[in-house]
Amino acid sequence: MGEDPFGVRKGEVTVELPQAFDASLYYIGRIRTPWTRREDCPKNAREAQALCTIELDPRWAEGLKGVESCTHIVVLYWMDRSRRDLVLQVPRHYGEQRGTFALRSPARPNPIAMSVARLIKVEAARLSVIGLDCLDNTPLIDIKPYFASTDAISEAVVGWHQPRKD
Amino acid sequence: MGEDPFGVRKGEVTVELPQAFDASLYYIGRIRTPWTRREDCPKNAREAQALCTIELDPRWAEGLKGVESCTHIVVLYWMDRSRRDLVLQVPRHYGEQRGTFALRSPARPNPIAMSVARLIKVEAARLSVIGLDCLDNTPLIDIKPYFASTDAISEAVVGWHQPRKD
Repeated sequence: MGEDPFGVRKGEVTVELPQAFDASLYYIGRIRTPWTRREDCPKNAREAQALCTIELDPRWAEGLKGVESCTHIVVLYWMDRSRRDLVLQVPRHYGEQRGTFALRSPARPNPIAMSVARLIKVEAARLSVIGLDCLDNTPLIDIKPYFASTDAISEAVVGWHQPRKD
Repeated sequence: MGEDPFGVRKGEVTVELPQAFDASLYYIGRIRTPWTRREDCPKNAREAQALCTIELDPRWAEGLKGVESCTHIVVLYWMDRSRRDLVLQVPRHYGEQRGTFALRSPARPNPIAMSVARLIKVEAARLSVIGLDCLDNTPLIDIKPYFASTDAISEAVVGWHQPRKD
């Protein structure tokens, strides 16, 4: 709608960022998706049914040994275009003010996204997956095996997100 | 056993790290746990039943608005003492060589751990949680709401970790 997608909306609050960083990351690959504009990305991972490709830097390819035995993986990636100073946000599709740590918004002090993806295929340093919703060419920072025993909490509730009874 | 816990074991393989970093992190708080030595930490999050405290930097405290409505949160933290150049590892308790991305080992190019924790209480910038297994004083890098709809995959399998039939 012409609104700056990286700007600050009414009701949103920023803080002053720390003077210095504390640690540093390597991009270890790129995520290739069908979406090149933010407004085209699926609203959330549940709606993300497109096949995406994770292109791992060949330097790290040996690190995939055993990954092919996983049905699902945890993918961490870096949302490099997000602002990092928002503490209170008003997501457009909810319209209510919430804390950054109560949201999965890309705007956060460390713009790391976590998605659980279904692993379809591994070929050399390329993984085909379903379940990602990020922009094409998003930097990859980690891949982990998903363990249902510790990672799957089917009874978990996000209270503010529950359907209203009225 | 006197072995350097941060060293390289037989069967493990390292790569040359990239010349430069690509992005930087802020520590946004600290995780207080009962474990001050690596050998005292629980072997995995399923065994981690102790009450731990997440101390968020007061700068970010407003970002917790709404978090109290979550039963579970995703906690990302930085395993600052881990080596980052291992691609193949031989975890002591399995004894077989596997790729870094098939393991939840702290040694990885970007030593970010992801744990799902049960939220017990939020008081100002302190969260009481159960389910973390890290060393006391571990740097916190993110907190996210855990959505069962996208994060809980109870049928997920890590093939190499399945119990053997014999």
